[in-house]
Amino acid sequence: MAKFDRAQLESLLTKRFFYAPSFGIYGGVAGLYDYGPTGCALQANITSLWRSHFVLEEDMLELDCSIMTPAEVLKTSGHVDKFSDWMVKDTKTGDIYRADHLVKGVLEARLESHVVAKTQRLSLVTSPANAGDAAAPVSAAGASAKKAGKKGKKDAVAPIVELSEQVHTEYEHVLSQLDNYGGPELDDLIKRFDIRALDTGNPVTAAVEFNLMFESSIGPTGQLKGYLRPETAQGQFLNFKRLLEFNNDRIPFASATIGKAFRNEISPRAGLLRVREFTMAEIEHFVDPLNKSHNRFAEVKHVPLRFLSATTQLQGRSDVQELAIGEAVAQKIVDNETLGYFLVRIYQFLIRIGINLDRLRFRQHMSNEMAHYACDCWDAEIHTSYGWIECVGCADRSAYDLSVHAKKTKERLTVQVPLPEPIVEDVVQLTINKKVFGPKFKKAAKVVEDYLTQLSEPQLLELKAQLAASATGTFTVIASDGQSYKLDPSLLSIDQVQVKRNVREFVPNVIEPSFGLGRILYALMEHAYWVRSGDEQRGVLSFPTCVAPFKCLVLPLSNSEVFGPMVQSLTRQLRQMKVPAKVDDSSASIGKRYARNDELGTPFALTVDFQSVKDQTITLRERDSTQQIRQPLEVVLDLLKKLVAEETTWTDITKQYPLVAKQAEGEDN
Amino acid sequence: MAKFDRAQLESLLTKRFFYAPSFGIYGGVAGLYDYGPTGCALQANITSLWRSHFVLEEDMLELDCSIMTPAEVLKTSGHVDKFSDWMVKDTKTGDIYRADHLVKGVLEARLESHVVAKTQRLSLVTSPANAGDAAAPVSAAGASAKKAGKKGKKDAVAPIVELSEQVHTEYEHVLSQLDNYGGPELDDLIKRFDIRALDTGNPVTAAVEFNLMFESSIGPTGQLKGYLRPETAQGQFLNFKRLLEFNNDRIPFASATIGKAFRNEISPRAGLLRVREFTMAEIEHFVDPLNKSHNRFAEVKHVPLRFLSATTQLQGRSDVQELAIGEAVAQKIVDNETLGYFLVRIYQFLIRIGINLDRLRFRQHMSNEMAHYACDCWDAEIHTSYGWIECVGCADRSAYDLSVHAKKTKERLTVQVPLPEPIVEDVVQLTINKKVFGPKFKKAAKVVEDYLTQLSEPQLLELKAQLAASATGTFTVIASDGQSYKLDPSLLSIDQVQVKRNVREFVPNVIEPSFGLGRILYALMEHAYWVRSGDEQRGVLSFPTCVAPFKCLVLPLSNSEVFGPMVQSLTRQLRQMKVPAKVDDSSASIGKRYARNDELGTPFALTVDFQSVKDQTITLRERDSTQQIRQPLEVVLDLLKKLVAEETTWTDITKQYPLVAKQAEGEDN
Repeated sequence: MAKFDRAQLESLLTKRFFYAPSFGIYGGVAGLYDYGPTGCALQANITSLWRSHFVLEEDMLELDCSIMTPAEVLKTSGHVDKFSDWMVKDTKTGDIYRADHLVKGVLEARLESHVVAKTQRLSLVTSPANAGDAAAPVSAAGASAKKAGKKGKKDAVAPIVELSEQVHTEYEHVLSQLDNYGGPELDDLIKRFDIRALDTGNPVTAAVEFNLMFESSIGPTGQLKGYLRPETAQGQFLNFKRLLEFNNDRIPFASATIGKAFRNEISPRAGLLRVREFTMAEIEHFVDPLNKSHNRFAEVKHVPLRFLSATTQLQGRSDVQELAIGEAVAQKIVDNETLGYFLVRIYQFLIRIGINLDRLRFRQHMSNEMAHYACDCWDAEIHTSYGWIECVGCADRSAYDLSVHAKKTKERLTVQVPLPEPIVEDVVQLTINKKVFGPKFKKAAKVVEDYLTQLSEPQLLELKAQLAASATGTFTVIASDGQSYKLDPSLLSIDQVQVKRNVREFVPNVIEPSFGLGRILYALMEHAYWVRSGDEQRGVLSFPTCVAPFKCLVLPLSNSEVFGPMVQSLTRQLRQMKVPAKVDDSSASIGKRYARNDELGTPFALTVDFQSVKDQTITLRERDSTQQIRQPLEVVLDLLKKLVAEETTWTDITKQYPLVAKQAEGEDN
Repeated sequence: MAKFDRAQLESLLTKRFFYAPSFGIYGGVAGLYDYGPTGCALQANITSLWRSHFVLEEDMLELDCSIMTPAEVLKTSGHVDKFSDWMVKDTKTGDIYRADHLVKGVLEARLESHVVAKTQRLSLVTSPANAGDAAAPVSAAGASAKKAGKKGKKDAVAPIVELSEQVHTEYEHVLSQLDNYGGPELDDLIKRFDIRALDTGNPVTAAVEFNLMFESSIGPTGQLKGYLRPETAQGQFLNFKRLLEFNNDRIPFASATIGKAFRNEISPRAGLLRVREFTMAEIEHFVDPLNKSHNRFAEVKHVPLRFLSATTQLQGRSDVQELAIGEAVAQKIVDNETLGYFLVRIYQFLIRIGINLDRLRFRQHMSNEMAHYACDCWDAEIHTSYGWIECVGCADRSAYDLSVHAKKTKERLTVQVPLPEPIVEDVVQLTINKKVFGPKFKKAAKVVEDYLTQLSEPQLLELKAQLAASATGTFTVIASDGQSYKLDPSLLSIDQVQVKRNVREFVPNVIEPSFGLGRILYALMEHAYWVRSGDEQRGVLSFPTCVAPFKCLVLPLSNSEVFGPMVQSLTRQLRQMKVPAKVDDSSASIGKRYARNDELGTPFALTVDFQSVKDQTITLRERDSTQQIRQPLEVVLDLLKKLVAEETTWTDITKQYPLVAKQAEGEDN
């Protein structure tokens, strides 16, 4: 098969309107894309399969929550302070780069230059006849004047020189750890390696944090600040109480949301892989922190997955280990059954929609790389021409989110489960003597009470000791208003008591599989794409039938009027069968029209020709093999229905029905 | 049937988590709501029916476009300047009101007070014994202190006095025309009727315009201003060229989008009816302005609709006229076949999902009420407890949007159709003599050329005349840079020539059916709701099966372990049949659990009892009638499958299978 050519695929995807830059006639905006009829149908099919694979199959509670989110919520969740990337500016032009991307770009360019330089030296040594061409790879790459100019700048940043073995190793080490660095580390790398702006060769500023959320304000006063949600998760957490009640107060259960999220990327590139607006599908599975087993784990434990653990990566390696999930959980490579169960379900979903299983792996996050809320995280990474791309994250967010929202709002976001038998616990109990307390502190009573109720058990015991030890019998504390208040034993008592408990109350942990649907869609298009050999190089998108935008193409042999009635009745029947079909009655040749629909990924085609009009038979063509059969109309429609429902396969059909000569397939008849 | 009680329905909808205020634990934000599992499933079902009713049935080209939109696009479309409401401020508290809503609120309150005053006077006259209670209606309404406070302020704004017949008529006229007023008219009404802030009785400021779009900025520089789209339409217009190409350069065709849009409402009330973030489904049907016929109009022309035309409204009337759409188009009540075709398709869709057809009408916009882009508009209005609510707009946007975007971007957003035979046209042709023109104007050549090429034919002819008439043979013009330039005949020639044309080129017109899915969903919930008479008043949501969140409830008689295996196997089979089901194995009585699921709108229930375990029969219950049959498991599942696919009805089933006594239906067994 021909080598993968990304430019060729992209040209096909634009021509067949899978997607295009948004606002194209206004010059476009980086990181914003529109999906056309084909991309949109592909996305709708993937989404619908996702819903049945996860939501229906696992009885998840689906939510549709607001995108516009008040600042207070995202302040609490940590996003206002921590959801950011590091950026640097070109000190002369003001051009902005994402710091880690700049480091990556420059070091990779230098490694490339190293290879060029080495090749040149070797070719000088081994074939002196080529000496005059020594600089050829560079000048060839800089063919056009514009390119040469850019290349010239790049040469300043990454000149054609060989690197010492030590530097080479250091660069590779840095690249393998890149996700692990914060701002100060990036500054350090930029200084140490003299990294400059890729387009100009100018020095860059120190890295500053840039928050990735789009900001706006809600209501006419302009005083309520809001952000577009950067993930759908927060809406699900805020509804936890209602969800728990809906689920009859039982856990584990999962909620799920499919919807848009927004990230104001610093300098988005790489097409659909890094965008500012995207569709996510997120699951929040709420589970008892003391029991992360899963009742359907046994069904999947034999499924082998390919793992790249944090340990392996920290050793500078990237070899994957294939292991049944049951074994991976037993060995603690994957922390628990629930996490393991979801890794398999993610795997099964991706395979189902057509991702190549040899280009799929699960990579564990390294500690610094983890989002601020996560305590463990595995990414399903799919291999594309851009390298390995994170397409699904599967994080254990522990009790982080529910805890911070509970603390902020004073709502109890907990679960109570009955204990098999009651237990007796020693607890430290604070009792405030309201009769004395109120009159003494007056308006400040609330703030002093808040101070006291937020003390931990050891702190309460220490306070009790201080009061006892004090000569005056009093002790002065400083409350959250910065004022000091004098406490004495008439105001409060602190006692160690025994309490009998019938229930255990806890904040659930959350396991979160989070899908970037746009990235999956792009990776799928790369995996589905190939070029049919022949006179012309014709692209084919071999989507599985379940995700293909159209299931069936309807072709009249020509635009002669004799075919009209049959084509119309055929499309009416296909509509009744709920088979998304497309008629191509343009004047192009049959061969061209087949080729066009191979580019749309349409798996089947029905062709109406003169014989059809005579004897009510039609041909059914399969996209990948280009094989055809001819049968009576009703037989073909029945076969098509079964093919679309995946109740039969083309291979089975060809065993039962004879193939016909591809009289219509030729390049231009 | 009991009188509709909105508070009762709302409490049911909250309890069963159809929707709830977003960010509830943070106190909520007006106009933002989250859909829970039931609301979300209802919405997904409505959306999916919409897609098959419109997109699949009519081969529409679905798009998914960016929400974040650069300011330039919305400046061109007119939204930056004109997409606004008028607001006034309480001069003392600064509270903000939407001006038309304030006028409406105050006048309606005065009309109410008038009725109260009149009743009091009549009761004084007719039953003097009640004299001591004369003020009763007021003090009864102000039962709690808080209410009384508010009521007291309201009394200042709308005191309990009878209105003169003239004032009464005037108020009613103003209310019927309210959508027709702009800012100056509203100011005038506020002054004339001494309208004050409803909550305080304070005077209000003059009305100022408030743009309803949420503003943000794109990218790290903060220099690219963006808005959240207020409609999905613009994304579709901007993709017109690609869509036309995708459709083999033919029109008519339609694009469609289902997605979120945002309006920063001044002071949102009325639950789901006026929100800041909502799901729209919009169709843009591109059509030849000279031929707005529709090839499927004949299929629908007999369908009667209920019309409230602009003419009727301007006469101060609101009586509807029922007419077959064919007749309405023939009489020019509805402008053209395409508009008429869509009105019927909208009607059919709304009826299909369960809207009560007696509470549906089509109201034409009055001229001042129309959006800035529309030249004719009909709303499908649904009657709810809030009155008649616009749920679908069907506007003829003419060539407005494509024209303004084409002018701004200089892209040709036109269609060319071959003429049956070529025509010869007289045109005025401008020829610029570049050899002289360039050297003469140098850098300014472009601006002068732009000035000339934008002249209309009559303007060109006038320029020609000016040049001819001038004594010096020159004529001075002022270009867009504000400079004057001297023209002479050596620079250009203007000639009347004949041109032969083989194609007609035009900007298509757009017919736009635009659905507010949240409003439709709310109206549907009101229409589906009723209260079953009995000991307890139990709410039922009689959704059609096609939209019901769950199709089937699975009930074990009790939480005895003997039912477990059968319930599990049943749910597995339902999943395989793709029937969304819900198990209720809580410890509540059968009667309570049936009632709970009537509130969820679940049309069918399968009950597993002791007999089931013995003989593998189960009961099937229908929600509205509460009737039940008992049959072998496989028979029941087959019937259920047909019911869900709407291939049979409950009435048909009861003709074939005997009903069983409702032993399990009692209130509390």
